[in-house]
Amino acid sequence: MSECIFCSIVDGTAPAHIVFEDDDVLGFLDIRPLRPGHTLLIPKVHASNLAELPADQGAKLFNAGQMVAAAQRASAIAADGVNLVVNDGRAAFQSVFHSHLHVVPRHDGDKLTLAKGLLIRRDKDLPGTAAILRAQLPKLGDR
Amino acid sequence: MSECIFCSIVDGTAPAHIVFEDDDVLGFLDIRPLRPGHTLLIPKVHASNLAELPADQGAKLFNAGQMVAAAQRASAIAADGVNLVVNDGRAAFQSVFHSHLHVVPRHDGDKLTLAKGLLIRRDKDLPGTAAILRAQLPKLGDR
Repeated sequence: MSECIFCSIVDGTAPAHIVFEDDDVLGFLDIRPLRPGHTLLIPKVHASNLAELPADQGAKLFNAGQMVAAAQRASAIAADGVNLVVNDGRAAFQSVFHSHLHVVPRHDGDKLTLAKGLLIRRDKDLPGTAAILRAQLPKLGDR
Repeated sequence: MSECIFCSIVDGTAPAHIVFEDDDVLGFLDIRPLRPGHTLLIPKVHASNLAELPADQGAKLFNAGQMVAAAQRASAIAADGVNLVVNDGRAAFQSVFHSHLHVVPRHDGDKLTLAKGLLIRRDKDLPGTAAILRAQLPKLGDR
């Protein structure tokens, strides 16, 4: 198992609810979601931060974000909006030092729920939520 | 003047403190910054949201975000961290419907200031802040 938890998910030695995979990018549910369906997208090759992330990998990460955002809207998640967020550096709330893009589904009027979400951050049915998003997205891996 | 304020900035009919420009992307200071140096990056060709934004343009937008983030760290802004954020849809707090990437410089221990910033959101010296970032970034336009 890698010292980096996200690298361990990539190499299959740590579990995750995978929702997206292509040659360069892996996507899985955040285990402490701000909202159900909250997905993390990571480059498969380790990059600690945005400065270490090659431009072509950054591009693929963002494009995957566009795809997952579309899936969060089109699927039973039925998002009305989506936030794409990179927290780069501890000062910006980065907690896992393998650069990643948050894709957070939003619903009209959920402001209070988001605030609550900062404290609660759980999804009672991660496998079910992952299945909903997987069904909407191409090129998926199971692990 | 375009009906879209960001298109008006692109065509030069609305003012902005430009910090970055290349063939596809324009970057300027947010006039209501969460933190001084808070930059907005936009595709020059109008796209209302992430779904309308072609993948190649999304890629260029994110790569510009990496560059501006590096400049916020390396310049006198001296950011310790950076948040990259896309608010896609009104439910996700999008207020200008020309898709854009926020690049927000962060400093260690600024959490309270960020909370304050949500209310205050001003920079007493936008031209000075823009000059600091411009000096750190390539291929700049003046307008």
